[in-house]
Amino acid sequence: MKPILYLSVAALLLAGSALAQTPSPTNLGRHPYPQIGKDGRVTFQVNAPDATSLTVNLGKDYPMTRDAKGVWTATTDPQVEGFHYYSLKAGGLSFNDPSVHSYFGMGRWASAVEVPGAPDADFYTPHQGVPQGAVRAVRYHSQVCGQWRQMYVYTPAGYEQNPSRRYPVLYLQHGGGEDETGWIYQGFADVILDNLVAEGKAEPMIIVMVSGVAQKADGSGDGFEQMVTEEVIPLVDKRFRTIADRDHRAVAGLSWGAKQAYDLGLGYRNLFSWVGGFSGIIVIGEFRVRPAGYEDPEKFAAAYNGVFKDPEWFNEHYHLVFIANGEAEGSHLKGMSEILKERGIDNVFYQSPRTAHEWLTWRRCLKEFAQRLFK
Amino acid sequence: MKPILYLSVAALLLAGSALAQTPSPTNLGRHPYPQIGKDGRVTFQVNAPDATSLTVNLGKDYPMTRDAKGVWTATTDPQVEGFHYYSLKAGGLSFNDPSVHSYFGMGRWASAVEVPGAPDADFYTPHQGVPQGAVRAVRYHSQVCGQWRQMYVYTPAGYEQNPSRRYPVLYLQHGGGEDETGWIYQGFADVILDNLVAEGKAEPMIIVMVSGVAQKADGSGDGFEQMVTEEVIPLVDKRFRTIADRDHRAVAGLSWGAKQAYDLGLGYRNLFSWVGGFSGIIVIGEFRVRPAGYEDPEKFAAAYNGVFKDPEWFNEHYHLVFIANGEAEGSHLKGMSEILKERGIDNVFYQSPRTAHEWLTWRRCLKEFAQRLFK
Repeated sequence: MKPILYLSVAALLLAGSALAQTPSPTNLGRHPYPQIGKDGRVTFQVNAPDATSLTVNLGKDYPMTRDAKGVWTATTDPQVEGFHYYSLKAGGLSFNDPSVHSYFGMGRWASAVEVPGAPDADFYTPHQGVPQGAVRAVRYHSQVCGQWRQMYVYTPAGYEQNPSRRYPVLYLQHGGGEDETGWIYQGFADVILDNLVAEGKAEPMIIVMVSGVAQKADGSGDGFEQMVTEEVIPLVDKRFRTIADRDHRAVAGLSWGAKQAYDLGLGYRNLFSWVGGFSGIIVIGEFRVRPAGYEDPEKFAAAYNGVFKDPEWFNEHYHLVFIANGEAEGSHLKGMSEILKERGIDNVFYQSPRTAHEWLTWRRCLKEFAQRLFK
Repeated sequence: MKPILYLSVAALLLAGSALAQTPSPTNLGRHPYPQIGKDGRVTFQVNAPDATSLTVNLGKDYPMTRDAKGVWTATTDPQVEGFHYYSLKAGGLSFNDPSVHSYFGMGRWASAVEVPGAPDADFYTPHQGVPQGAVRAVRYHSQVCGQWRQMYVYTPAGYEQNPSRRYPVLYLQHGGGEDETGWIYQGFADVILDNLVAEGKAEPMIIVMVSGVAQKADGSGDGFEQMVTEEVIPLVDKRFRTIADRDHRAVAGLSWGAKQAYDLGLGYRNLFSWVGGFSGIIVIGEFRVRPAGYEDPEKFAAAYNGVFKDPEWFNEHYHLVFIANGEAEGSHLKGMSEILKERGIDNVFYQSPRTAHEWLTWRRCLKEFAQRLFK
């Protein structure tokens, strides 16, 4: 096993000032590469003397060039601020860059860069003196899936100092190819809530994160809804000091997880009354990538076990439907929000400036959503 | 982002019975490869139609062979039961297998297989009905290192149900190239303690895991001891319900972490009174891979700020020195234990049957060590 090698801070500062580049915060230890230039271009460097060809893929392929010593380099087009997955590619295989942290995404442990420059980065940055909640990794056995699994549970600052206080709960889902670790390591959900609560902008709440990949043990299909409603929620209500009713239970998710959040939040009206979908659609009729089926009153009234049938009932019983995405994702979710309003369904729409289908969008979505919860 | 693809359980059972192979428990989702045969041989399979050459390294290089469809396969020599890191290699680069979980090891996120067959596997296997402790990921700011870092903290079952009870603490270090996540995901420390406590074999305790890589912010060298003694211990004693004295504080570690554990446990006699070193040496004089310097009474008396100077004092004030390794690592630590006894220093030696410098050895070391703590 090799030790992690660190450059001295002095060497880094020197390199930084000479190149006007900063190492990605996702780099392991004090690895200098990947580096991000002031224009948002990312420079990658890999030591691979024996490689015959090497490519980095960040949104698209960038062939790397080799120097005399066998060090391969590539610089990308300017990237928008935020978190971007990437891969190294050789011989048709995609794999991890050994110089950065890995994150569970793209259906495997994947590499990522964080391009700095978000004007609002403070909200997802840890600050000294802000009281911290705790993130717990909880192993649990799912009968539905026939396997031991892990959930992450965030409890807010003060949870342990106030042993009689009970808290509302947000169930928070990752996107396709990710898992229960995404909202903490890619999303900084714990930091975002710590900061919001410290500023008095959000209610202290428990956040539960489970993997949305939940094949039934008997091979009969997707067990996600059954696992959450019959196993996860009862376990959380038993193990943690929750307020165990629909008025104090929210669900949200991103992308594929937004679909799951709507399935749970709108489909199980006895369990949830606050629903958020980040970069994902409310499905009327059959699933489409873009909102569809809203023009058919029968389909609309039948969706999610008829939850939209009586808009007056809906608006009275649901505290929040929150729809959001990134500006670079286009206007289809803004359109969906407006159609829902036309159909009489109250909802709130939010759009993250500049960003696409990625984690800076979703960090902002969580920040906006969390401030509206349980009030 | 690609969804994770699962084979049906039926297909897996079929494949399993036909080949007498079982998928590694480290595989992502229900990926069929790597598979382990009854003889302990591991078969790897990677889909890489465009690769010109591919090798898997598990202890040594195994060149993979390509079939007509571009699927590459290799089968290793028989492997001893337990956890083994491995890499794929192409073009001189070592990288992760996308079909298995990644673990922080080898100085990066690395792939691993778990070869079943340990006769005592029950002790590190989660069992339904066993009361569970909790593992928390705690972000903390180190002034010494000038950075935000993460520690893992295990609190035993009952910690939250007994808000006035205080607990002893074990500080537990990973090996070289690993980090604070190793003892949970490679080592199952939480499962091991849950099981021991449930059987009444170990005292309920808090376990603190920090990364042993702790370069000082000012570039002046290793800040590990300063960070642990001046920052981590005070933070843990403040944030958790510890019994904050040397009689109730232990430290242990594996390999490089064993050296760190001895540095802390023997070097800071005001802080620790229980010390464990798994697969690592007590350094007399200058560091050697094998124990050395014990024959020189002056060096022996001077080591660790003179802690061994008066063996009678030592044996009276230290509750436990626990020395352990794996059978396949050789007899040098058994020899070290005996030399220490000859020099009048009480200690306990344990050897894990069959295993080498790897995690099944260290799971067993923790199991043996934990049962002797705080009694």
